[in-house]
Amino acid sequence: MDLLENERIDDLQYEGLKLIQNKDGFCFGVDSVLLSDFAKEIKRNSVVIDIGTGTGIIGLLLCKKTSLAQIYGVEIQKNVAEMAKRSIQLNQLENKFEIINCDICDIFEFLKPNFADCIVTNPPYKKANTGVKNEEETQMIARHEVKCTLEDIIRQSSKLLKDKGEFYMVHRAERLVDIMCMLRKYRLEPKKVRFVHSKPNEKPKLILVKAIKFANPFLKIDKPLVIYHENGAETEEIRRIYGR
Amino acid sequence: MDLLENERIDDLQYEGLKLIQNKDGFCFGVDSVLLSDFAKEIKRNSVVIDIGTGTGIIGLLLCKKTSLAQIYGVEIQKNVAEMAKRSIQLNQLENKFEIINCDICDIFEFLKPNFADCIVTNPPYKKANTGVKNEEETQMIARHEVKCTLEDIIRQSSKLLKDKGEFYMVHRAERLVDIMCMLRKYRLEPKKVRFVHSKPNEKPKLILVKAIKFANPFLKIDKPLVIYHENGAETEEIRRIYGR
Repeated sequence: MDLLENERIDDLQYEGLKLIQNKDGFCFGVDSVLLSDFAKEIKRNSVVIDIGTGTGIIGLLLCKKTSLAQIYGVEIQKNVAEMAKRSIQLNQLENKFEIINCDICDIFEFLKPNFADCIVTNPPYKKANTGVKNEEETQMIARHEVKCTLEDIIRQSSKLLKDKGEFYMVHRAERLVDIMCMLRKYRLEPKKVRFVHSKPNEKPKLILVKAIKFANPFLKIDKPLVIYHENGAETEEIRRIYGR
Repeated sequence: MDLLENERIDDLQYEGLKLIQNKDGFCFGVDSVLLSDFAKEIKRNSVVIDIGTGTGIIGLLLCKKTSLAQIYGVEIQKNVAEMAKRSIQLNQLENKFEIINCDICDIFEFLKPNFADCIVTNPPYKKANTGVKNEEETQMIARHEVKCTLEDIIRQSSKLLKDKGEFYMVHRAERLVDIMCMLRKYRLEPKKVRFVHSKPNEKPKLILVKAIKFANPFLKIDKPLVIYHENGAETEEIRRIYGR
């Protein structure tokens, strides 16, 4: 596999999966790993769409953790999409995992509505025009809602999903109100929420959400997912998720 | 103080406060105590309304924990409202705490809109027509949304509050989606959320919410409020809240 300048191949330490990342770009984090674990109950033979796939990390993990039939990774940035395609080749998953290089708002030029069994997404976390913006452009697009907003993702997800299709997302916990209101607005009823805490006695940093299209309201909130014990050691659950 | 049949006087173990409760009725729980602690940042000289005041437990605690000017307790059940009035007399708080015996939907026969600095409420938790209903009528009205729904409370609260007035509520954690969507619908923007867990490694049972009328969106999620350690002993925070 030929690498471009500044690229490296990381071993994901999970069933031999490898991932190409740009050392100066946006590298995957614990959020992607947690989402792929949270979404591992995806049903056998599902057609899945990963919105904002980035390096492809979530899709690659889901190819190994679930029995999905087909996954499409939608990525707006051409250079990032190309890198994800090479990671798919590197793992010989071309028959299962296809990258679509487009804006999610244009997705219906490529895919049909009411077509997917499942959506997974780790979207840009920060609202446009907030926080530090003197980042590399690639990182900025991955982190800020400059190219697509939370509402774009939820609206398009609702259109893409079949009746009773499942939507899995990881986001910043502080966006809780926006997430709940937007999901319900687009008829993706939140069914399961799990908050992620760095340590047990700290406020949650991330939220994992499962919603189902056209489902009746009834929410289950899981026990907290804690990354580190008070003494700084990883919790047993995190060790299980990372396969350590 | 004359007590009716089946009534008893409980010592709240807080600044000498006493409370009349009906042994066969709905007795106060940890939720009321937690809400009165969560709401103790109520500003000096505030005019406060406690919606669904029941025995008056929250209002009595707030009279001691804050420097509020005046509190109105709205209670639909005549017998419960009368009992709360006698508790207020027992504590010589008649100059601060007034009971209004009415349906919250009729509150504007008694109070003006855009008038309150703060609302506190520990509403009925269960949706009407769900769960066991063979309870005493008094308890059923306190627990189920038979006489007023979450939407009634939030809509009326929004009308009662001044611009930037504060709304504090305790509710079941599983009603998270309804609470967030309804608050935003009536322009009470959620600003602070705290989940209450029986034990650290369990799912949250209750949610404490602070919202502000016409505020801009920005949510803070506090660290979890945990009632018992894994070994069953009360946490330091609970001991502090109960003044033990």
